[in-house]
Amino acid sequence: MSDGTIAFDRSAQIFNSSIATWAVSAAWDVGIFRALTEADQIDIPWYAKNEEMHEPSLRALLRALSYADVVEVDFDRVTRGATFEEFSRSKGLLQWLTKGYGSLFQRMGDVVYEKHRTGDFIQRDSSAVSIACRDANDVFMDAAFTAVLETLDFSVAADLGCGSGERLIQLAKRDPSLKCVGIDIAAGAIEVGTKAVAENGLQDRVTLVQGDARKLGDYPEFADVELMASFLMGHDFWPRENCVELFRQFRKQLPNLKHFLLCDTHRHPDDATSDLPLFTMGFETAHALMGQYIPTRSEWESVFEESGWKCVRQHVYSTPANTVIFQLERADGE
Amino acid sequence: MSDGTIAFDRSAQIFNSSIATWAVSAAWDVGIFRALTEADQIDIPWYAKNEEMHEPSLRALLRALSYADVVEVDFDRVTRGATFEEFSRSKGLLQWLTKGYGSLFQRMGDVVYEKHRTGDFIQRDSSAVSIACRDANDVFMDAAFTAVLETLDFSVAADLGCGSGERLIQLAKRDPSLKCVGIDIAAGAIEVGTKAVAENGLQDRVTLVQGDARKLGDYPEFADVELMASFLMGHDFWPRENCVELFRQFRKQLPNLKHFLLCDTHRHPDDATSDLPLFTMGFETAHALMGQYIPTRSEWESVFEESGWKCVRQHVYSTPANTVIFQLERADGE
Ligand SMILES: C[S@@+](CC[C@H](N)C(=O)[O-])C[C@H]1O[C@@H](n2cnc3c(N)ncnc32)[C@H](O)[C@@H]1O
Ligand SMILES: C[S@@+](CC[C@H](N)C(=O)[O-])C[C@H]1O[C@@H](n2cnc3c(N)ncnc32)[C@H](O)[C@@H]1O
Repeated sequence: MSDGTIAFDRSAQIFNSSIATWAVSAAWDVGIFRALTEADQIDIPWYAKNEEMHEPSLRALLRALSYADVVEVDFDRVTRGATFEEFSRSKGLLQWLTKGYGSLFQRMGDVVYEKHRTGDFIQRDSSAVSIACRDANDVFMDAAFTAVLETLDFSVAADLGCGSGERLIQLAKRDPSLKCVGIDIAAGAIEVGTKAVAENGLQDRVTLVQGDARKLGDYPEFADVELMASFLMGHDFWPRENCVELFRQFRKQLPNLKHFLLCDTHRHPDDATSDLPLFTMGFETAHALMGQYIPTRSEWESVFEESGWKCVRQHVYSTPANTVIFQLERADGE
Repeated sequence: MSDGTIAFDRSAQIFNSSIATWAVSAAWDVGIFRALTEADQIDIPWYAKNEEMHEPSLRALLRALSYADVVEVDFDRVTRGATFEEFSRSKGLLQWLTKGYGSLFQRMGDVVYEKHRTGDFIQRDSSAVSIACRDANDVFMDAAFTAVLETLDFSVAADLGCGSGERLIQLAKRDPSLKCVGIDIAAGAIEVGTKAVAENGLQDRVTLVQGDARKLGDYPEFADVELMASFLMGHDFWPRENCVELFRQFRKQLPNLKHFLLCDTHRHPDDATSDLPLFTMGFETAHALMGQYIPTRSEWESVFEESGWKCVRQHVYSTPANTVIFQLERADGE
């Protein structure tokens, strides 16, 4: 037969891995990570019945999970596999890829052409992206951020690109004298966030504004800010000359601003493709397809220098890879 | 940092593999397999300009390809990689997964619930599926089929689930005295196929009918058939008892029928997940999600026996895995 000479092992490996990635994302949605954390084993027919699931579909999902050793399936019994703990942490990043940006990746062969790059060609699922980001923040990022905050002194905090305001709500809860103001360009995020602020009874201390973080001077709510954070949107401040100008403006428009904690994923140091760490290739490919430049770490460092900020420390995350909290202070020391 | 104890290697591997799968599918769409077959190298900026492509997107696509060693990228120069030949053959099966069924896999966490399994919950991209199937037929399946035909004698041939009629058009071209009749339930496929038949000037010898292959008695066009083929839709004849009854009917309704070549992908022999060969997990997962049972090879064999067919030979494909042409003749030898 004409296909006898090629084993197709590599094709099988990436084909099966794709299914496993979708399965991890789905397993999170349907509560399998929670169920197998609470119990050491699940009976498949019982679980399917209890959750009103189509049993053959559930079995297919579990089989795809077991391909990546997330679970072990023994007839009707599912138990945690060797990578269960790993994927119960990385699930948000995988869902960012499959549900958040899957439809963009699926149209890679279209959007590579200039003629298809008009109108709303991106079509990401923003709500999946924000759920995935919240989980990644929770699992990977918040602990280091909180540790940095504990070394700093401030009574008014801001968050640029605050999404649904989760980070500010946490801050305000931890410190009952803190005032917070957040801004996000997405009306939907601010709507969800405003509800969450009210539900937590924090409306006197946490204000969320719908608007453009590149125009903070337009919003009097920001006048007194002492500590400013911005997570996972710094690349939106680029191209470089715009970012330099903007960071200069921050110093001028916010006279009380002492601390600027900028956290973002930067470009991978080299163009190697073997052993690319988790998230890097997805993040860089998605932004290339969207036409958004991702700066390197040293490009960031030169922006700080040129715009009058001193980077006093860098807090480097191992996962998501290439992600850093740049801890900035005014270079002039005012 | 709280993520310091886990390396996330396995997560990175399946995450990056997903992107590579999408990239192979896109590379086929944008002509990279053709371009690197015709030339030994491509200059990226030149190619992007020539094809009116967004260069950063093209570079991201190529980088994802190079993760699976499909190509090698050296600054502006792309050359064939170690798996180029492999993926230029498997690309159809990968595109079946990403574009054909990607949106179903993306909704795995929804469709697993009974309450979401109503209406058109499948939402596959039928045109992508048929383009992918045509390529897989071309690369993997047609040679063995043609070899079987050369051992057989017939003057009227039928194809059940003929799609766009490609297989019958090939047959009619090879044998200028052959009459052919195809049936497919999809109006779109028959429309495309009827055009292709006319373009080849074969309308006197090739007839395509829109209808249900389970009701051949309703179509007088099938009365004289001597050889019948059916590719990649046999599982649509199930559940078992329906299939047995239908295969009995074929013998009665088609008195001249001597040869029945049934080719389909059957269920993998065991539930193992390690080393699953190319296609198996995608095919079985998709059909589980769609609620369609896939019989095992021995289940097929028992159907032939019970319905009065003798399997005189099995032609086994190594890729796609678990795929067999069952060469059937009337058991009664009439
Ligand atoms: C990847 S999300 C990160 C959200 C949140 N900071 C977190 O850590 O999860 C980026 C956010 O930045 C917001 N954004 C992007 N450009 C913006 C701009 N110019 N002004 C305000 N918000 C912006 C988006 O609407 C989105 O909510
Ligand atoms: C996977 S495609 C295979 C097409 C083609 N035989 C090939 O080898 O590429 C399955 C085809 O079977 C058709 N089909 C499914 N059920 C059918 C039925 N009951 N009667 C006729 N066609 C049917 C579908 O419309 C589709 O074109």
